[in-house]
Amino acid sequence: MSTSIFSKLTPQATKFYPLLNSLAEVLVNASALMKEFIQNYTIENAEEYNKKIKALEREGDTISNTIFEELNVTFITPFDREDIHHLATCMDDVMDFINSASKRIYLYKPKRIPGSAIAMLDNLIEGSEVIREAILDLKTFKKKMKEIKEHCDKLHTIENKADDIYEHFLIDLFENPGDGVELIKLKEIMHELEKATDALEGVGKAIKIIVVKYA
Amino acid sequence: MSTSIFSKLTPQATKFYPLLNSLAEVLVNASALMKEFIQNYTIENAEEYNKKIKALEREGDTISNTIFEELNVTFITPFDREDIHHLATCMDDVMDFINSASKRIYLYKPKRIPGSAIAMLDNLIEGSEVIREAILDLKTFKKKMKEIKEHCDKLHTIENKADDIYEHFLIDLFENPGDGVELIKLKEIMHELEKATDALEGVGKAIKIIVVKYA
Amino acid sequence: MSTSIFSKLTPQATKFYPLLNSLAEVLVNASALMKEFIQNYTIENAEEYNKKIKALEREGDTISNTIFEELNVTFITPFDREDIHHLATCMDDVMDFINSASKRIYLYKPKRIPGSAIAMLDNLIEGSEVIREAILDLKTFKKKMKEIKEHCDKLHTIENKADDIYEHFLIDLFENPGDGVELIKLKEIMHELEKATDALEGVGKAIKIIVVKYA
Repeated sequence: MSTSIFSKLTPQATKFYPLLNSLAEVLVNASALMKEFIQNYTIENAEEYNKKIKALEREGDTISNTIFEELNVTFITPFDREDIHHLATCMDDVMDFINSASKRIYLYKPKRIPGSAIAMLDNLIEGSEVIREAILDLKTFKKKMKEIKEHCDKLHTIENKADDIYEHFLIDLFENPGDGVELIKLKEIMHELEKATDALEGVGKAIKIIVVKYA
Repeated sequence: MSTSIFSKLTPQATKFYPLLNSLAEVLVNASALMKEFIQNYTIENAEEYNKKIKALEREGDTISNTIFEELNVTFITPFDREDIHHLATCMDDVMDFINSASKRIYLYKPKRIPGSAIAMLDNLIEGSEVIREAILDLKTFKKKMKEIKEHCDKLHTIENKADDIYEHFLIDLFENPGDGVELIKLKEIMHELEKATDALEGVGKAIKIIVVKYA
Repeated sequence: MSTSIFSKLTPQATKFYPLLNSLAEVLVNASALMKEFIQNYTIENAEEYNKKIKALEREGDTISNTIFEELNVTFITPFDREDIHHLATCMDDVMDFINSASKRIYLYKPKRIPGSAIAMLDNLIEGSEVIREAILDLKTFKKKMKEIKEHCDKLHTIENKADDIYEHFLIDLFENPGDGVELIKLKEIMHELEKATDALEGVGKAIKIIVVKYA
């Protein structure tokens, strides 16, 4: 514990650590639930699944707000409060895009969800787990520089993979457009999922900034 | 007058007060005109209505620019110039989204505009009037803390109501999509109106920042 | 050379000048190539053209990144590093929107590209050439104030012209929508091109900031 990034600074600062951990946990749960939603999707169960995702989004918001409030009242030097703020905001962004994809499924009720959405979610689950690992390693980051760098590189790879999945999805979609209204639905849903993986990479960059600064 | 938020600071600062008032007035007028546009909409009169909305948008721009220029040359302490700048920018955003909805009606010429657009506009008119009240109360804000807080809460409620209207509109739209091209038109027009009410809430937050800071 | 905006300051600062020039050159090449792409477009050659545009976008990124890195290590006073950073970022934005339009043509494979896209590109080519001139004039900007002002005004005019082209395109598109899926494709492609000309005007504003500040 004595090597914790926060405990090294001031005793009060240690409270951010479990909060960031909980936020990562919310992302892992939301990605897994979103995959379950897509796999089991029917027009009938969409509202129920969307409610559960929304509940996780609110849980994430509560944690982020606690972090922001604590940052306002905690004196942490030389640790930059804006860097923790930025990290929490980026994690929040991932959750927002997952929630936004879920909401669109519920509102638009597509006839079917393409297989590429499952590939996208596998990617997102993997990325959320990498973030959880990276935040665990942040605790003893001076000993874990190599691991954290690898996690961040992984998030970059995952984002590239999501770009590929999304591009192939679009090519397929426009090659066999069928119903124009269904096309609009699926394009938007997949776009939100793609933005969620962009946001994953953003989390990686936010972690990198902290690690480089305090190494 | 001796309790005016601006007159308390420096004599020059008082000029911002009537400017913010005029800007609120433009929003009230634009919301009312936009409702009239939607109620009376025909493919033939769309260009004329859009011109009138555009004229109000330019009027708002002129007022905002005057505010920004005055902020650059006026010495106001301890009143934060960036807070007035932010408030004016948020009011400008509302106007921009109204104008953008109007422009899309003119460019896309939808066959009909759904009834939910009227509900949206009633909401927007109410919100613009609340903003006008809140800015009137800003003048003697130390005596009006309770009222201003209520106005800001109202703007939050209005934004939530707009979200509901927009969600139900989307559910209806995709349940009975009919013509895909009409769906694209209506979805975009309603989305701009929904963003206008998001921006209303932004104005409420900007007012709250000022009131909390100088209370 | 003694009147160069950069050489006046410190010897190291002169390196930014050829870098900005190269970036302008990339924009001119990308606009010309994009016009060729649209003129010769077939479903078969779209991938090849898109690859070439993407290569230019990467070239632009490399130059921008060199500028950003140099800004971090070069001591330039009283020249504001954030102003050069902003100028390079704005030029990058133009390239990003051209690339994004190109990518959408490749992914969506529209049946035909409307004539208004050519008008848009002629506009974009003209704007890129104006930027190249303006950056050449930046070198001796104290003698070229009038010319630079004219270049920036020109970029504003070009942006207005692009707005007109885009609006007429939309009116035509929705008057004769035909296939809804084709409408979605063309609307997005043209929108990216329109955003590219918005970004051109942004470059003009970034140049103006520098010129006004150091005049």
